[in-house]
Amino acid sequence: MSDSREDSFLPVQRIGLALNKARHLLTADTDTALAGSGISSTHVGALLLLSLGFARTSAGLSRLLGVDPGFVTRLVDRLEEQNLVRRDRDRPDRRVVNLTLTEAGRHAAARAQEVAPAVLNERLASFTPVEFTTLCRLLHKLLDE
Amino acid sequence: MSDSREDSFLPVQRIGLALNKARHLLTADTDTALAGSGISSTHVGALLLLSLGFARTSAGLSRLLGVDPGFVTRLVDRLEEQNLVRRDRDRPDRRVVNLTLTEAGRHAAARAQEVAPAVLNERLASFTPVEFTTLCRLLHKLLDE
Repeated sequence: MSDSREDSFLPVQRIGLALNKARHLLTADTDTALAGSGISSTHVGALLLLSLGFARTSAGLSRLLGVDPGFVTRLVDRLEEQNLVRRDRDRPDRRVVNLTLTEAGRHAAARAQEVAPAVLNERLASFTPVEFTTLCRLLHKLLDE
Repeated sequence: MSDSREDSFLPVQRIGLALNKARHLLTADTDTALAGSGISSTHVGALLLLSLGFARTSAGLSRLLGVDPGFVTRLVDRLEEQNLVRRDRDRPDRRVVNLTLTEAGRHAAARAQEVAPAVLNERLASFTPVEFTTLCRLLHKLLDE
């Protein structure tokens, strides 16, 4: 890659490609680490958010994962088929469908909770504490959070 | 989300979720901006890398996008079906298949080159130049580049 060609990338495109690549590599690392467990990187975010109580509904997952409701519906369908998640009508408000992890789902979430930080820690091993905190802050700023 | 529950997330999990969410949101923003153009966020990285001459083969795309060769094969299949990319055997080394943008592909790449930076610039509007450079540096450090 010559310097002159590298210059033809706008700085903002570099950030876009780097974000993309980071996501792809972390997904691949996570899938490798989860091989044989029956769950994949696609499930990790939802399982963690449900097991830690951050999200209890598909709408909550959609908001916290930043994905559209249709994607979450398909994701929850798959988790339900794998008997990891149960959909229950809420008692006080029957329009709301609560998501509950099954026993198998809780085991899968525990596995995800071991694997996901380990994968990231490996990629972040050379970060100083300040760099770590700065990356976290800038990502949240990007997300306007 | 209570503070105590928020604390149950490891710092490294926050970075993982933030990266995930950033990717999902930028994908959604890009798809919205590309609506009706016949291409989607999935195509943008490959079209940009091919049009700027950073990648000329599937192996190059795989390396620069950080995705596995199987994913790239399916992506190039789709781009070929849409008549955006042509696969040509290399003259000196016939084992190598070069990827060339068609005229429609060059138009699509030009559109992607307008849309992708605009989408990112909107998300990064409140960043100072130092924050911008720092995010770029830390993402490349994460990628070990």
